[in-house]
Amino acid sequence: MKAAILSIGDELVLGQTVDTNSAWLSARLVEYGIMPAWHLTVADDRAMIADAFRRASSECELVIVSGGLGPTEDDLTRHGLADAMGVGLELHEPSLEHIRGFFTRRNRAMPEINKIQAMMPVGSTVLDNPVGTAPGIRARLGRAEIFITPGVPKEMFHMYERHIRPYIQMLSNTSGGGGRAIITTKVNTFGLGESDIGIKLGDLMDRKRNPTVGTTVSEGLVSIRIRSEFPTRDEALAQLEDTVKQVETRLAPLAFGRDDQRLQDTLLKLLLEHKKTVATAESCTAGLLAKCITDPPGSSSVFVGGWVTYTNDLKHQQLGVPSEVFTTVGAVSQECATAMADGALQRSGADYALSLTGIAGPSGGSADKPVGTVWIALADRTRPTIAMRFVFPGDREMIRDRAAKTAMNMLRLRLMKLD
Amino acid sequence: MKAAILSIGDELVLGQTVDTNSAWLSARLVEYGIMPAWHLTVADDRAMIADAFRRASSECELVIVSGGLGPTEDDLTRHGLADAMGVGLELHEPSLEHIRGFFTRRNRAMPEINKIQAMMPVGSTVLDNPVGTAPGIRARLGRAEIFITPGVPKEMFHMYERHIRPYIQMLSNTSGGGGRAIITTKVNTFGLGESDIGIKLGDLMDRKRNPTVGTTVSEGLVSIRIRSEFPTRDEALAQLEDTVKQVETRLAPLAFGRDDQRLQDTLLKLLLEHKKTVATAESCTAGLLAKCITDPPGSSSVFVGGWVTYTNDLKHQQLGVPSEVFTTVGAVSQECATAMADGALQRSGADYALSLTGIAGPSGGSADKPVGTVWIALADRTRPTIAMRFVFPGDREMIRDRAAKTAMNMLRLRLMKLD
Repeated sequence: MKAAILSIGDELVLGQTVDTNSAWLSARLVEYGIMPAWHLTVADDRAMIADAFRRASSECELVIVSGGLGPTEDDLTRHGLADAMGVGLELHEPSLEHIRGFFTRRNRAMPEINKIQAMMPVGSTVLDNPVGTAPGIRARLGRAEIFITPGVPKEMFHMYERHIRPYIQMLSNTSGGGGRAIITTKVNTFGLGESDIGIKLGDLMDRKRNPTVGTTVSEGLVSIRIRSEFPTRDEALAQLEDTVKQVETRLAPLAFGRDDQRLQDTLLKLLLEHKKTVATAESCTAGLLAKCITDPPGSSSVFVGGWVTYTNDLKHQQLGVPSEVFTTVGAVSQECATAMADGALQRSGADYALSLTGIAGPSGGSADKPVGTVWIALADRTRPTIAMRFVFPGDREMIRDRAAKTAMNMLRLRLMKLD
Repeated sequence: MKAAILSIGDELVLGQTVDTNSAWLSARLVEYGIMPAWHLTVADDRAMIADAFRRASSECELVIVSGGLGPTEDDLTRHGLADAMGVGLELHEPSLEHIRGFFTRRNRAMPEINKIQAMMPVGSTVLDNPVGTAPGIRARLGRAEIFITPGVPKEMFHMYERHIRPYIQMLSNTSGGGGRAIITTKVNTFGLGESDIGIKLGDLMDRKRNPTVGTTVSEGLVSIRIRSEFPTRDEALAQLEDTVKQVETRLAPLAFGRDDQRLQDTLLKLLLEHKKTVATAESCTAGLLAKCITDPPGSSSVFVGGWVTYTNDLKHQQLGVPSEVFTTVGAVSQECATAMADGALQRSGADYALSLTGIAGPSGGSADKPVGTVWIALADRTRPTIAMRFVFPGDREMIRDRAAKTAMNMLRLRLMKLD
């Protein structure tokens, strides 16, 4: 089964918006062992959309499309599909009622422009949209089954669950024993670059190996992608898990989680297991660490709170950093980071406190404290406070991101007794 | 001139990584009036890569490619290009020296696997990479000039600036008077949905109009995209600015900035103009507001600091929220938000303080305080504190994002005397 992902929108080809839908949809197909052959993005241009439909439906059996179903005049996906199918549009009354109802429940009349969202290519099937005004469209063209959802990610997610997943599920149940099972996973690591990871993985990365092992860098994390393809699902899964074990053994203690698991998810899990709490004291990251720690639902059981002490005055007043620190070694120093973490530990009543103070840039650097210099301290009720100095590469956003991740990783290693 | 963007990587077609390079590269081309025709993403598959090169170079004059130049065995872009060109690979000695030097400067020997990065298709040109090990590649194939950069965004940015931008600049200088000038911009708004924005824009969105006006929703913001195409650059620019004025007039006070300008950039500008400072007191957003306010460089002039009071104990101890508030109306209340903002204003010495307390979910909601309920307060040295209740849709991440944006927008409107 060959599948393709199509996304439609001027904002995408003009680079005004990053296409996140295609990656999300691909990951869903891969869950069922369907490898997308390609992603294609085209503009809000009726002829180009029609052409993309023709091309996709001549090459693939499954085409999933997002975008261009909105109410405004630049939304032309329905017209492009109708052109490729060689048909016109017709009004779908129940959809019109649904759209009217959407506005009525908000005590408003339906704007006339929304009527276009109830117009469907003749011969297509309407996919109802429980979370927005635009229904989706399903149609058969060439050898392809085509599913179209709105481009708004939230609506796309719902439409996938309601209409597309059941179809793929049905396909994967009926394809039977003749097919091959493909299972993929990712092992996520933090702390080393891609070359070093590649060396540690060595022969596991041989392209002729099955399962295959590849690496990808994203936002400071190196992920090891593993893809296992065997005649049966059981065999594919067993081989996948065997390779995962080998990868994790070669990369311990860098490997912290699988698939979508983030550092903060692992940290929450460890804190819950150990029944410990954490507080934060941030300068350069200014709340990013606290925000990350509280990304996962349930983090209120382990996170007490934190301070964003951007000025020296607040560092002194709120966390008790001695004023001499600023006049002698300065705010970006071991002494300041240590005092911030100690102050946060004491005032919050938490079991651990993490602090960060550094220079996120782009200005403010010097020869001995270049932009990217960050001191990170970890205070612990049962052990002396430690502080470490890092110099992170990149721009302001990257420096702040790496600093927050490094702080979470310090606490992860402490909880695992690996630091 | 027809251009296309190609990105290469298993992690992209498998949906493990979102492709941000294509959007970034497109935005750069658009700056020179070149509209990319499409984006295509293919896997780390030698035959598919070669096929994508053939297809792109038969349709386009300019093809920009990122990804697949790494040192590991899944990096096959150079092989795919060589196949499409019908040539082999040859060693480029200066590149090998560069790669060796990269490791030598880090006191390490070059791993043998990195040697592949110095192998180039015969007849291609090497594009040196000042920030990483992998050189880029430039080649002529069919009617296309092809530029290939590493997939790591930071390296891609540098390679664009060093090698691709000068080429596009040269093209746009020599295309002369026969061509047409295309200029685009975006007007960013916050506070109304896409349908309502569409109604307010009315006839400006007519598809036959020039400049064209389109809308895109992203992360709670509606952006109005304007594209002006005229024989001369001066005319395109004048027409563009005229349309921008009409858009801004119809959408005031929702429109807060142009192009990449974020709410936090506008807020920083306004605070600097008014010489005012701000502090934060956060519960449900847990540092996200402080993080956003400090995203732009220079924010240390206007941001004093903040508190992340996740527990009621910390809200009471650190910000002076009366304990009765928790036992009577609860932490998600007008009283709590007001006391948090007042406490932060007083303790920080700032001119303004923003506070947020709410239920980010997924659990913790009730009939009268559903998930998404957030109270936001604004304390001001010269006016009584105001607090407003919102119920944001979506998941935990979306609720926290909208809450932080709404808080920034409240202060923006106060500074502009529009609230």
